[in-house]
Order: sequence, then structure tokens, then C-alpha cells
Amino acid sequence: MDLNELQRLLSAFKDGELPADEAVERIKNLHFEDVGYARVDHARATRQGFPEVVFGAGKTRAQVVGIVDRLVQRSPNVLVTHTDEETFGEVRNIATDAEWHETARLIRIQRDKTELGVGTVAVVTAGTSDIPVAEEAALTAEAMGNRVSRTWDVGVAGIHRVLAERALLQSARVVIVAAGMEGALPSVVGGLVGVPVIAVPTSIGYGASFGGVAALLGMLNSCSSNVTVVNIDNGFGAGFVASLINRRWQPVETTK
Amino acid sequence: MDLNELQRLLSAFKDGELPADEAVERIKNLHFEDVGYARVDHARATRQGFPEVVFGAGKTRAQVVGIVDRLVQRSPNVLVTHTDEETFGEVRNIATDAEWHETARLIRIQRDKTELGVGTVAVVTAGTSDIPVAEEAALTAEAMGNRVSRTWDVGVAGIHRVLAERALLQSARVVIVAAGMEGALPSVVGGLVGVPVIAVPTSIGYGASFGGVAALLGMLNSCSSNVTVVNIDNGFGAGFVASLINRRWQPVETTK
Amino acid sequence: MDLNELQRLLSAFKDGELPADEAVERIKNLHFEDVGYARVDHARATRQGFPEVVFGAGKTRAQVVGIVDRLVQRSPNVLVTHTDEETFGEVRNIATDAEWHETARLIRIQRDKTELGVGTVAVVTAGTSDIPVAEEAALTAEAMGNRVSRTWDVGVAGIHRVLAERALLQSARVVIVAAGMEGALPSVVGGLVGVPVIAVPTSIGYGASFGGVAALLGMLNSCSSNVTVVNIDNGFGAGFVASLINRRWQPVETTK
Amino acid sequence: MDLNELQRLLSAFKDGELPADEAVERIKNLHFEDVGYARVDHARATRQGFPEVVFGAGKTRAQVVGIVDRLVQRSPNVLVTHTDEETFGEVRNIATDAEWHETARLIRIQRDKTELGVGTVAVVTAGTSDIPVAEEAALTAEAMGNRVSRTWDVGVAGIHRVLAERALLQSARVVIVAAGMEGALPSVVGGLVGVPVIAVPTSIGYGASFGGVAALLGMLNSCSSNVTVVNIDNGFGAGFVASLINRRWQPVETTK
Amino acid sequence: MDLNELQRLLSAFKDGELPADEAVERIKNLHFEDVGYARVDHARATRQGFPEVVFGAGKTRAQVVGIVDRLVQRSPNVLVTHTDEETFGEVRNIATDAEWHETARLIRIQRDKTELGVGTVAVVTAGTSDIPVAEEAALTAEAMGNRVSRTWDVGVAGIHRVLAERALLQSARVVIVAAGMEGALPSVVGGLVGVPVIAVPTSIGYGASFGGVAALLGMLNSCSSNVTVVNIDNGFGAGFVASLINRRWQPVETTK
Amino acid sequence: MDLNELQRLLSAFKDGELPADEAVERIKNLHFEDVGYARVDHARATRQGFPEVVFGAGKTRAQVVGIVDRLVQRSPNVLVTHTDEETFGEVRNIATDAEWHETARLIRIQRDKTELGVGTVAVVTAGTSDIPVAEEAALTAEAMGNRVSRTWDVGVAGIHRVLAERALLQSARVVIVAAGMEGALPSVVGGLVGVPVIAVPTSIGYGASFGGVAALLGMLNSCSSNVTVVNIDNGFGAGFVASLINRRWQPVETTK
Amino acid sequence: MDLNELQRLLSAFKDGELPADEAVERIKNLHFEDVGYARVDHARATRQGFPEVVFGAGKTRAQVVGIVDRLVQRSPNVLVTHTDEETFGEVRNIATDAEWHETARLIRIQRDKTELGVGTVAVVTAGTSDIPVAEEAALTAEAMGNRVSRTWDVGVAGIHRVLAERALLQSARVVIVAAGMEGALPSVVGGLVGVPVIAVPTSIGYGASFGGVAALLGMLNSCSSNVTVVNIDNGFGAGFVASLINRRWQPVETTK
Amino acid sequence: MDLNELQRLLSAFKDGELPADEAVERIKNLHFEDVGYARVDHARATRQGFPEVVFGAGKTRAQVVGIVDRLVQRSPNVLVTHTDEETFGEVRNIATDAEWHETARLIRIQRDKTELGVGTVAVVTAGTSDIPVAEEAALTAEAMGNRVSRTWDVGVAGIHRVLAERALLQSARVVIVAAGMEGALPSVVGGLVGVPVIAVPTSIGYGASFGGVAALLGMLNSCSSNVTVVNIDNGFGAGFVASLINRRWQPVETTK
Repeated sequence: MDLNELQRLLSAFKDGELPADEAVERIKNLHFEDVGYARVDHARATRQGFPEVVFGAGKTRAQVVGIVDRLVQRSPNVLVTHTDEETFGEVRNIATDAEWHETARLIRIQRDKTELGVGTVAVVTAGTSDIPVAEEAALTAEAMGNRVSRTWDVGVAGIHRVLAERALLQSARVVIVAAGMEGALPSVVGGLVGVPVIAVPTSIGYGASFGGVAALLGMLNSCSSNVTVVNIDNGFGAGFVASLINRRWQPVETTK
Repeated sequence: MDLNELQRLLSAFKDGELPADEAVERIKNLHFEDVGYARVDHARATRQGFPEVVFGAGKTRAQVVGIVDRLVQRSPNVLVTHTDEETFGEVRNIATDAEWHETARLIRIQRDKTELGVGTVAVVTAGTSDIPVAEEAALTAEAMGNRVSRTWDVGVAGIHRVLAERALLQSARVVIVAAGMEGALPSVVGGLVGVPVIAVPTSIGYGASFGGVAALLGMLNSCSSNVTVVNIDNGFGAGFVASLINRRWQPVETTK
Repeated sequence: MDLNELQRLLSAFKDGELPADEAVERIKNLHFEDVGYARVDHARATRQGFPEVVFGAGKTRAQVVGIVDRLVQRSPNVLVTHTDEETFGEVRNIATDAEWHETARLIRIQRDKTELGVGTVAVVTAGTSDIPVAEEAALTAEAMGNRVSRTWDVGVAGIHRVLAERALLQSARVVIVAAGMEGALPSVVGGLVGVPVIAVPTSIGYGASFGGVAALLGMLNSCSSNVTVVNIDNGFGAGFVASLINRRWQPVETTK
Repeated sequence: MDLNELQRLLSAFKDGELPADEAVERIKNLHFEDVGYARVDHARATRQGFPEVVFGAGKTRAQVVGIVDRLVQRSPNVLVTHTDEETFGEVRNIATDAEWHETARLIRIQRDKTELGVGTVAVVTAGTSDIPVAEEAALTAEAMGNRVSRTWDVGVAGIHRVLAERALLQSARVVIVAAGMEGALPSVVGGLVGVPVIAVPTSIGYGASFGGVAALLGMLNSCSSNVTVVNIDNGFGAGFVASLINRRWQPVETTK
Repeated sequence: MDLNELQRLLSAFKDGELPADEAVERIKNLHFEDVGYARVDHARATRQGFPEVVFGAGKTRAQVVGIVDRLVQRSPNVLVTHTDEETFGEVRNIATDAEWHETARLIRIQRDKTELGVGTVAVVTAGTSDIPVAEEAALTAEAMGNRVSRTWDVGVAGIHRVLAERALLQSARVVIVAAGMEGALPSVVGGLVGVPVIAVPTSIGYGASFGGVAALLGMLNSCSSNVTVVNIDNGFGAGFVASLINRRWQPVETTK
Repeated sequence: MDLNELQRLLSAFKDGELPADEAVERIKNLHFEDVGYARVDHARATRQGFPEVVFGAGKTRAQVVGIVDRLVQRSPNVLVTHTDEETFGEVRNIATDAEWHETARLIRIQRDKTELGVGTVAVVTAGTSDIPVAEEAALTAEAMGNRVSRTWDVGVAGIHRVLAERALLQSARVVIVAAGMEGALPSVVGGLVGVPVIAVPTSIGYGASFGGVAALLGMLNSCSSNVTVVNIDNGFGAGFVASLINRRWQPVETTK
Repeated sequence: MDLNELQRLLSAFKDGELPADEAVERIKNLHFEDVGYARVDHARATRQGFPEVVFGAGKTRAQVVGIVDRLVQRSPNVLVTHTDEETFGEVRNIATDAEWHETARLIRIQRDKTELGVGTVAVVTAGTSDIPVAEEAALTAEAMGNRVSRTWDVGVAGIHRVLAERALLQSARVVIVAAGMEGALPSVVGGLVGVPVIAVPTSIGYGASFGGVAALLGMLNSCSSNVTVVNIDNGFGAGFVASLINRRWQPVETTK
Repeated sequence: MDLNELQRLLSAFKDGELPADEAVERIKNLHFEDVGYARVDHARATRQGFPEVVFGAGKTRAQVVGIVDRLVQRSPNVLVTHTDEETFGEVRNIATDAEWHETARLIRIQRDKTELGVGTVAVVTAGTSDIPVAEEAALTAEAMGNRVSRTWDVGVAGIHRVLAERALLQSARVVIVAAGMEGALPSVVGGLVGVPVIAVPTSIGYGASFGGVAALLGMLNSCSSNVTVVNIDNGFGAGFVASLINRRWQPVETTK
């Protein structure tokens, strides 16, 4: 955050050049820190209840570490997704309690473990190969203060496998389903439960799966009305939205 | 529902051939009615808190009326989407309190108006032409017991229009955003609020909008983590999921 | 069939210019009749056990009637698919026992009703709107000498509906499943039975269903190994292959 | 399989809490084994006449070996597809009679060689480069108890090559045709035989073959009515369905 | 053609300001006539041996007639493609010998019938529905001075039909093959003849034919090396190129 | 515009609660008028030098007229694109000087004809059928105060046609090129001039033109570095950007 | 070639069991040699005037060498495309006069250099990066007995470069144009010459070139009527067809 | 440049065989140098105000160095894009003042630093990962004589970040916006400024971003009328066009 700018705003406010509500808005929104290659967004925690997550792919290792360095000073919980173990090695130098999750290829710093949800987030996969994406969702949901259940390999070709877990799924506040290939599992799960289902297509498959497109289209066309969809392999996004759904919610006090 | 089958189950239960929890499960699941061309699913209200909605397109007028006829005997609120005014004329013969919503091309029967949500569902459009899809979402959410706010034509080319509605949006429990063309509005709204945003791509546009594909892809790739997506023009699905998110939720009692 | 050519072949055979097996092959293959705009293929019945079916779309009404006229003189059972009631009116002039099937938009002449199959062909749909395609499959299978069972509207969003028909499906020699939207039903059915499942994607749906592409891709990527796929809306093809699977089969006597 | 659950079911049955047919169904369906990352499906052999095949891609080597370890204890014949020679090395440690098939990149354990089919499965390729996919089909069909004939490199650019094999093809109960590029061979073969043809598009080609899409579309649009299609490069699926078609079939005894 | 410009060029040439070869080039290239909405290209006959053909679609009726009016004054043979009978009615007012070809929806004025080719152009279709496109090719080739043979409905599902015409095809200088659906016929014909094959995909088909895309891709990936491809339904282009191939050719005298 | 809000802002400013520059910004941005179905954006003229243009497609006739009614009270020049003659009839009731442009299907009100550009905007088409899109561009550029030259039907198949207009094109400040089919003309024009070329793909063509996609891709891949692209058929956008390029430009005075 | 089969045919002929023309046909068509993984087609030289070319990709090195070994014993000229220098090393062991062409990645054995064409084959590229594909075309045409001219880097962004070669291009019997990116050059060349133009899209480009798809679509939609198209990067096919066009042609003596 | 040709032209001019304006045109257009694999276009500087830029991908290192060698003798400023550090090493041997720009992977020789623009070119990115493409644009604009401002990481998910730079953006003559994923930033920036916005889609993203296609489509469908688009990752093109827009412009003296 730009302290000079803050001082300028505050003295303007003091001098009566800037009214109170305007000062509040300007200061709240200026909560990002310009590190040259990125504008680290400290205001997002205020706005959305969670710090900016670092998407590792397409950034240099130094950039990732630099951003984490800023975030970790203000936020107890930080995630780095789509990263690798070498980056983890460097992140650990500045945050010794960082954890490396090999399956999801994700770095997690979780200093605040307060439970924030009203119920459970259920995470489900159709096959064994979908687990990495599902783990990304599960680790995200945990980092955002949720209890998480994991159910792997209950795809529709053996329908009794998912039916056997019906009670578990029906007790959740929200269900995440990761599936590749034909992506049919979210429709079946959607029909079994009365809560939102977040479908995550995975890029698992070959030939006419087109890197997850078949699963994506299947989920978008789901005949179960309680299904919404995120991008292919976007376990993080699914975990994020599921957390917002499960969160204890209070009407926001608005300025006006 | 098949009464013979019910009797068979009940006497089996009485004779001790069928244990109690099994009887409950079987009876609950058998709550559909076979009318030849459709299996009307009365159990869905139990499972999901809302009766089966009739998707009008691809069904004959007689089929629509026949299905509504069954639904309306058990459920106070019924929706028919993707339909026309002639069908409404026939539906009104069997349900005189049915309403015709021209913009959304939707029939609504709403006898139960109990409010079931914890907050408001905000519905937003990028342009004037997106209103029909947004209305479908809004009418669905109302039929499922929600307070709904409507904000039309605040697309990103004039960013001050959506910023002017920031307070309204930030006070909602969940936001639905309908947008065609480049579909950028959900990302902007997603950055402004701390609740789930359900993005509905619309088929509005021409040329390289490909009937809504451009908007759909934009939304799936949203850089705002709180965005999930439904099918192109699927206002109903968005309203349905928003209702499940906004609903007062109690942990389910499970058999085990 | 070209009689001059036949005479030429036979006299060549008699004169010893053409050996017996060669004569058989040449005569068998020449069994088509050139009517200018089409080569009506009478040999196909010999080769495949069924006469050429007339695909009505893209042909003039006169062409359809002309082809049926040739076929009906040699073959007891004839089908015209993708046609209309006016064409039926003209076909009935040359074949008074022709039937019009409105749902499937198909003309059927069925003079031979011998049962040729070892078991039943089960035809199943996910929704009400898939029935026209499924009827085309069922009518084809009946015309080819099969017993057919029909099960409509058992899509995966209410999984108990298809489970309720498990016994029926498990008793069939082959199952045809027609589904639009996400096309998930063949995978579920495939997991329930131990026989081939022929999946027919239908063009039912909207938005990202892309006229049946979503269903087609879902079926091609099915995680059930016993699923094969035909073209979108190709009920006829599904019924045809199902008939070949169900047919009593004897090793062919080959010339060599 | 969960033995506790089995005991619970059996005592419930004994106590009269669970009727006989219900017990049969529940026990049959519970035949899967949860190994954490996978639910190994021992019931599939009962339901489909063959054990679960392991799709190697996307699984760790340890996962593949772990799953094979469970399967091989109950099933005489096991396949691992899309795998490599290193995995084979480890599988051989737990099953010394495992075979490595380099061309198809497939591990096969085949302890039961009983012939189960009524006729032959003919496997055909358009070109030399399609052989790996065709071998996967042929090895699968053999593992499922079929006699298999192999005919390589008879693509349509030299039509006399496939015509020379007409007698062989016409003697089969079912034909599998693997072809890349324009994928035209299944249509030609389909016209020559009176049995089902299973078309396997391969990813062989370049440019506008789009990794097998051109062949796939060609096959889906085949003008031969006896052609059905599986996913690109899915030799296994083709071999599996061909086996079900060729199998001696008896009407199933159903509970009701 | 701009006569002022021609005069200017000629006097420049006479005055020695413009050398001879330059004058030739400039005059040859300026042979187009600007009629406001179009630049009618009289030079094309010189450059390519045939006048500009009028593509009727997307032009008003008056524009078509206006362009034909200019062309017909300089060129004995004129074609209008993608047009309708009403336009023909107006064209006949200015060219009473114009012919209307209903099947191809094409107007032809053919005053010069000199034969210009060295051999025959063979035109072939896979099915009856492909005839309109093939007729457009045949009529074009005739208008450009070629003998044309027509062979309809010899698609690959009955391979004996095309084999029966082998001698006819092998006697041609160039073969045009029009096919929809899987578009396999050009590959087969290509393998039978030793001359160029021009493949014309047609938009005949449904479902995954995608308006001719399946046929187009099949033809582009043909395993017969003598196949080239034109746009979907572009019978005119095929007839045009075939004429250039069949034409008696003399080395051009070049300026340098 | 919300007058209450304006009064509130002004009194806040007078009372010293709102500083001058802030008042300017807030008032400038609030210049839109909420008419229920649309937020008419009067501020856009200030921000971009031109009033909001009404995109007619997807709006009811009453909506179009309502929006024009607001715009015309504040802006001398108004455009309605993608509209029809009936709408024009109603618009003329509220603006008697409105012009109907049949070719471009566009309504124009042009009361201010001040010339604002430094040079000419050249508009070029490849063919006759591209004229409607090019006219939309030309009419837009004129309405924004530019001199416009029109050059129709100079596509690359007769390259001398465009070369003949080289001098005209080289004298323009910016060139707009509309082309369908292969969309090659912008690359050629781009190589001839030293100013920006705005390429407009049109939906003219058939078969593999895919409604303008072929032209769009061609233009995006142009080997001429001075080419940028707008949406298929977006003549308006091309005319708009060309006007901004051609406009006399002064460095903006910024608040800071 | 199967000598036993030949003997069988000949003695049948001698014994009067096989008539002369039939013997001719059967023997001509049986000219392929089955080497297990391939059916080497010696008859193709007879049918098409050139031996089978070996497409190297997707074949093992041993397979390539094995096929070349057969071909080289009967045919003076052999090509291997899509291959590498290591394979060349092994091919040289069996054919010491084999040449390695690095740019085109092609092996050529050319023992017969008789000129067979009536004119020249002109090969042209749009850019430097298109040369490898163009070289494949040029080397093929040379191997088939043609004089070839090469013109590199005359893309449309500098239109004077191709105009400078007009005389050269106009003197050819057929022109091959290889271009990537927007693929516009064939249209321009097509307008300059009066002979067939074979367009070869190359995979050169990035982003929305989609591996050559943009160029392919551009060429298929060419407004020059004398353009036909081959697959992306298919230099061989272009050279092959150009050779057939340029070849001195005699009407074929047909059996009937 | 071909000096012989120049001499020939000049003496023709002197002898009165070639008029003055013709001589000018011919000499100007002949300014390219044929180095075998490329025609180096020295005339482009005259025509477009900048020398040919070398696109490094798909050329050998020797080819790149060879072309630079020619260019650098006539042009003070040269760019090589899509290249690598090894090529830079060799280029430095012939131009010791060449600079290597690692982020953009670009070689720049900039000997002339005259400012040629009327205002500033603003370059903006949505995220950190878009910087390489944006740097290519910025370096190009600088090499063409422009002042450039850089603003990184102001994507729409934190809309206050771009609003904070409003003044900077509004002071530019033209704005370049590079964005991947949903590509929404150009629409927002377009609404904030009154000058042209050049949108550069980047290939940043995963899953349904399809290598930049989602961003590309979003930008083509922008609801801001001042947005034009270049190819995915085409930073160079964006910088080039921006330079032409920003350049001080004088009406060109034309020959006629």
C-alpha cells in the first residue's frame, strides 16, 4: 500500500477537502501494493474474506516468492497453485510453516484454522485420475475454514458406488464433483442432493475428450438444475465458491 | 405414483419382509408418476425443495399441459420455461391463477409465497437485450421464496454504471449476472462483492459471439474466483442455484 | 438389374469363359437397378439381410416414390426416414399397406413380421423430447424382426427412475439409449447391463449443447466399456445395428 | 469388499429384517473394494462378464500395481492399457505370467483361455500406423475368449486390397476397423458384410486430421448402416463390445 | 473499360512516353468496367480463358442482371450460379437464349460450343442428394468446352457400384467427385484412376456432418495422393479447375 | 440524468463537503439516464466524442424509439444500426430529419456536419456483396465528421483492380477494408499504404467460410503489420475507430 | 507379389477356367506384396504412373527400410517423406544412391530422370518459413519427371514481389503455392495465371493460425476459381497432383 | 536491390522509353533484395515508415543473421521478435549495439531515437503473466519513435486498480491492452478513454482459455466501440499500429 498516498488522503480529509465516506472508499480501494510486475491486492481480504491466491503458472519463481512475501505479512492463510516443488523450497525460506501438497502441486500456508462454515463441503471424484484437481479444491476449502469430506472414484459406470455414499453427500451444505471423460457424475449427484453442486471438468481422457471439453460441455448441459460449472481443472475456483456458499452469512452493513 | 407398488411395499414392511429404513427409501424414491411420455417426479420436491420445472421446448402443447396437470395437484408453485402464450392459454384452463410473463416467455403458478431466503438475490444484466434471460432467473428465484433485486444495463463499457450500484450488490447473499457479447460483467461484479456470483452467458451478439460461446468462454475463464457458470441463456438454472445458496440451511438428518 | 449384362455373364459362363464362382460373385454384385438419379441396391438384402432404406431428406418427393416403387417389388419390408406426411400420401398410392408414424416422421411397409432375434431390443430415452429419435430406432428394429421394449424419460437427474427399470434392461440382448443435453444416460445403463449399449445422441438441448455435440462427446468418452455411438439423431442406424446384434447368427458359408 | 457390511447384511437377512432378493442385490452391488485412491469393482465381472480393466494413463505406477494386485486375486484375466514397460516390470513381480505387448503398450494376464464366442472377431486396419490401436482391440478380444483374425494395411486408396479379403471378413460375427486420416475404410467394409462393424478412429494423420477428428467424423457419418463408433484410439472399447456381440447369449433370469 | 484511359495510354505510347511491352500490360489489365457496385472484369477471359462468372447469392436481382448485361456483350458464354428462377426471368429479357437449370439453380448462356479439351471430364456423385452440386460442376465444364460424363449414386457403402464404372472413370482426363456425409468416395476413385481427382464436399448429411465439414475433412485427409479439394458445395470451382486441366495447353509466349 | 443526485452533489460541493475535482468527476460520470430497460449514457459524448449508438437487434421497437428520444435531445448526431424500415418510420415521428439507409439498414440523424478529421477515411470492399457492411462503416465515419472515399469490388482475384486505386488509398489517413470469403484484401492493402488498416470480416461466403470465420482468421493472421481487426460484419466499429484515428488530437488536460 | 497365386491364375487361364480380360484384371490388381505390417502396392505404378511413396511418420525405422527394400527392386524412383536423417543412414545401406534433403526431411532415390511433362511446374512460397513444405512439393515433382521453378518469399504484404515474377508464373503449366498465416497468396497468384493453382496451407504462424487452419480456410474460400487445396503441410500431395496435370496425356485404352 | 535492373530502368528512362512517373514507381517497388531464402524488403521503410521486422520463429539462426545483416546496412532501427539469446549472440557480432530483451525475447537495434509521435502510447496488462507480450508492444513502439507508459497488472477482478490509472490512460493518444483468460480489460479501458484501444489477447490461461481463444473472442465482441484486435500474443503488431496512429501525419503527395 502506498503510504504517501494514504498520508495525502488523510491530510485532505483533515483539511475538509475530502469528506469522510469518500475517504473511506478511497483508502479501502487503495489497499494494493505495486511491486512492479504485480499489484498485490491486500484489499481483497476485506472485500471477499480471503487474500489473493497466487496462480503460479506463467510467473517466474522470483515473482511468486516476491508476491507471497507481501501477502504473508498481512494474511494468515496463503495459497500458491499450479506451482512446483522448487518454488516451494524458496517459499519455505520466507515462511517455514509452508506445506507442500504433491498431488495438487500446491503450496499452503495455514496459520488460522478457525472453522467458518455452517456445514461440510463434500468433494467427490469420478475416477482416480481426477484426484489432483479434487485435492486442490479440498485444500482450498480447508484453507478457507471448512470441514471437508473426500470421496474418490465413484464414477457412473458403477452407479452403486455413488449410491453407497448417498447419506454422506446428502449431509453436506455444498458438493464439489470433479470428473473427466464424459463428465456425467455431477448430474447424478445433483439429482441425489438438495444443495448446490459445483462441477469441475478435468482434462482426464483422450481422443474426443479434447482436454476436458467433453466433460465441460456435459456439465454445462446438465439436466440437474442445481449444477454450476467452473473452468477445466479449476479445483481452486470450486473450493473458493464452495467456501462462500458454506460460510455463515450476515447481511452486510452498507454505507448508504 | 404407483399405488399398487406402494401397497406392495407397505404390506411387505408390515410382514417384516422389508425393514423400516428400506421402506422409507423405496417409497421416497418411487414418487414419480409414469404418464407414458414422461415420468413426473414428485419426489424431487422432497429431495431438492422444489417440484420439477417443465422445460417447454421440444414437447407438444398437450404434453406440457398434461405434466403441469399432475404437478399442480401436489405442488403449490410450478414453472414452465421456454414456452409460448398459446400454451399459457391452455394451462390457464387447468390453473386459473397461472401468470404469463411475456419477456421471459415463462408460465408461473405461485400459490405459496413464503420467504425462504436469508438475504437478497441480486440479478444484473450487461445490456437491455439480456433482460429476457435475467427475468427468467428473477422469476424463478421469486417462485422459490426469495427477495430479488433487478439491475439492468450496467455493462462494462460504461463502468461507472455498475459502480453506482455497488452498495446494492454488496448487500446481496448471491448475485446473478447475465451478459452476452464478451461476457465481462461477471468478472467485474465478482471483484466487487464477497459472495458467489452465478454468471449466465446469453446468446446476444453477432459474428464471433457464436451464439453466446464468446460470453461463455469469458465467464469460464473469469479472473474473479467467486464466479461459477451455467449454460448459455439458462436463466432458470441460475435462479435455481441462487435460491439454494440463499436458503436457510439446516444440517440434514441422515439415516446413519 | 441389368438383364443384358446378366445374359452376357451367363453365356460367358456357359461358354466356359467365366468360371462358376466368378459368375456367382459378379451376378450377386450386379443386383442394383439404375433409375437415373439413384442406383437401387437390391443386392443389399442378400449382403446384409435387409433392403436399402430410403433417407428422405434432400430427395424430391418423386425420387422417394420412385425408389420405393422399385424396392417394394422385391422386398417385403421397406422404410423411409426423415420424410413427411405428403410423401406418405403418395407412397400409399403404390403401397396401400404403408403406415405413417408421426412421431418418428417415418413411413414403414412391413409385410413380413417373422421374428428373427434371439432376445429383446430395449430402447430407452433420457427425456420426453428424445422420443422421436428413439421411436425411429424402435420402428426400425421391429421392421427387422425384433421384439422391442420402450422405456421413456429415465434421465440421470432422477437416478431412481432408471434403477427401477434395471430388471427390464438386464433381460435385453442389446440396449439402445437416446439422450440429448449431457448424454449421460448410456454410461449409467452401460454399467447396469452386460450387453452392448448403442448410444444415440439427440439434438435436444440449447446453448452449449451445440445441436447434440455435447451429448455426442459425452457418449464417445463414456467410462462404460460396452458403449458404442452412432451419429446425432440417427435412430435408424441404432435400430439397424441392434438388429444385427440380436439376430440369430450362423457362420457364413464362404466360397473358399 | 467390506466384510463388516456383508456380515451386517447377512444377519439382517437372517433376522428377517432384509428379504432374500434385497439381500442378493445389496450384496452383489457391494462387491467393490475401496483402496483409497480407487474403488476396485469386483462386481463388474458378475455384471458384465469381465473384470475391470485398468486404464494406465494418469495413474501413478504404484496405483496401477495396487489395483492389479486386487484384481488378479479374483479374476483369471486382467488387462492394463495405456501403460509402459517399466510398469510391466513391477506388475510381473506380482504376476509372473503377465505378458508385455509392445505394439499396443498393454499388459495382459490371461489364465483362462476358454473360448466364449460363436464366431470370429475380424480386426482390420487401413494402414501400417493404425496397427497399435488394432492390436489393443485384438488382444482385448482374445482376453475375453474370442478367436481373432488380423488384416493389416488394406486402406481404400488401393481398394483391391480389402476386396481380396472379402471372404475372410464375410465369415466373421463382427468386424473391427481401425483407420486414421479420412477414416473411410469402415464404410467400405460395412458395405461388404452383413454383421456389425465397430469403427475405431485413430489419431494417425497430420494437418486437418486434427488428431483423429477427421476420421471420427467420417465414421459417424458413414453411409453404411451397420457401423457404430468408439472414441479415437479406443482399441480396448472396440474389442470389448465386439466380444459382447460375439458371445453366446442366454436370456437372463431376472428376479421378477 | 475506361476508354479515356485507353486513349491516354495509346497517345503516351505513340509519343514514346510508354514503351510497347508496358503499354500491352497496362491495357490488358485495365480491361474492367466499373458499374458502381461492381468492377466487371473483361480481362479475365484473356488471363484465364473464361469470363467472370456471376455468383448470385448476396447480390440484388438488378445487380445480377446489370453485370450479365455487360458480360454478354463481350463473351459468348456466361454463367450465373446460386440464383433463382425469377432472376432467370429477367436475364432472359436481355439474353433470350439463356437456359435455366433447375437442379443446379444456375443460368447458362452458351453461344460458343467449341470443344477445347483433350479428353473427358467425368463427374461422379456418392448419392442422389449430391446431384445438384455435381450438376453445377458438369454444366460449368460443358460451358468451358468439355465433353462430360455423369455417374450418379455410386457411394462406397455398395462398392460394386463404383467398380462397375471403373472403365468409364479410367478413360477420363480428370474426375470430379461430389460426396456428402463421410466423403469417402474420392479416396476410392482416386485409387482407381491415374489422373487428378477434384473432390467436392457437399453439405448433405445431418448431425455430425456439420454442414459438410465431415466430408471436407475426409477429403483433405485422403490417402489417395491424386486428390485435391474445393470448398463445400463448390461445384462451379470443381468444373472450372477440371476444365483447365483438360484444356489443350501451349507454352505461353512471355514478354521476357 | 438524476437531477436529485445532481442537486445533492452540488450542495455538498457548496458546503465544502465535496472538493471541486471530485465534484467534476462524479457529475461527469453520472450523466446517464435510467429509463428502466436501459441506462442511456449521455456522458459518453464527453468521454469519447460521440453519443451512444443504438444497436437495434434484440431490442423492441418501442425500446429503440425510447432511447433515440433521449439521445436526440442532447446530441446532434445519432445512429441506429441493425434496424429496419418500420422502426425508421417511428423514429421519424420524433426526428423528422432522420435518414433511412437501406443498404446498411441504418437510421442516421446528422445535424452537425462539422469536419473533424485531419485527412480522409478510405473504405474499400473486396466484392459487391460486402457493400452493406462497408456502407455502415462509411455512414458512421461521416456522422463522426470525416470525409470518406468509397471503393467497391477490388478483391485480390483481380489484383490490378486494387492496384489501380493505389494513389487514392495512399492519400488516406486510415483505410477500412471489408471482405468476406478468404478475407485477403486487407493484407494486400496493408502492404500498399503506410497508415492503419482496419479489417472488417464479413459473413459473405458459403461452406467453409463459416459465416465469416475464415475471413476473420485470415485477417487476424495478416502478414501486414498495420492491420487490426473488428468483429464479423461490424462496420460500425470500424467506422468508429477510423474516426478516432483521423480526428485532430490534442493532449488531454488531466486533473493531476 | 504372391507368385503362387499368379501361377494359380495363369494355369486357370490356360485351362480355360479364366478368360483373358479377367486374368489381366486379377493379375494387375494382385500386384501388392504382403510384408506383414504393410501391403506394398506394386500395382500403383501401373495404375497411377508412380510407385507408392512411403509416409515415414508413425512407422518404425525397420518398417520404413523394409518397405523401401521392396519398392526399390521394381521402381527406379522412390520417395520417403516425414522422415529423419537416421532413417536415411539405414536406407543408404540398401540404396547407395539415395539422397537426403534436409530442408524437406525427405529421402529420394531417383534413377530415372526422363522428362514427362508438357511444361513447367512453378512452386512458390509466401514466406521463408514455408520453404520446407514447398521443397517437398518441388522434389516430388522432379522425381515424377517435371521441370520445376522455385520462387520463395513473395507474400502479399509486399505485392510487388509476386508481381515481379508474373512472367515466370504465367509460363508454367501448373502452379503450387505454399503459404501459412492468412494463406492469401494463392488467390493473388490464381488471379494472375490461367492454369490450375494448387494451394498448400502450411502450419506456419501462431495464435489464431491454429496450426494452419486459418490458411486452409482462406484457401478453400479463395475468390480465384482456379484454386484447389490439399491438406496442411502436404507438399507431397501438391507435387503429385501437379505432376499428373503437367503429364503428357493419352486417352487410355479401355477393355471395353 | 538489383543494381543491373536499376541501371536498365534508368537508361530506359533516359532514352525516353520509360516516362518519369513510371520510373519512380518501378524503382520504388524494386527495392527488395533477393537473398535466396528471403526477399528483404528495403522499400517498406519508404512505404510504411519502418523497415521489415524479422519474425524469428521458423527461420534458422543463419537466416535471421543474414536478413539482419542486410537490413542494418540501410535502416537505423531493426527488430527481431520470437527469437532467443543464442541468436542474439550472433547478431551482436554484426551489430555491437544490439540489445537483448529477455522478457519479450526480442533483439532491438535502435540507432535513431527521434521522437515521431504526437502523444504517448499507453501499454497496459491485466496480469503479471501478460507482461512479455506487452513488453514486445512497448519495445516496438519505442523503436518506432514513441514515448511509452507501462501499467502492469490492473485486471478487472480488482477494478479499483485500473480506475486508479484513469488519468494516465486518458492522457494517451492510443492505448494497448494485453490480457489473457477472459480478456475483459480492453472493454473497461475502452469505456474510460476517448482514443483507439488496441486489444492483444494473450495465450495466458488454461482449460477453456484454449490458448488465448477465449480472450480473443471476448475482445472481438467488446461492447466498447473503440476497440480493435490483433492476433493472440501479437505484441509487435499492436505496437506497430499504435505507432502509426500516434505518428504526426501529413497528407501524402500523390502522383496524380
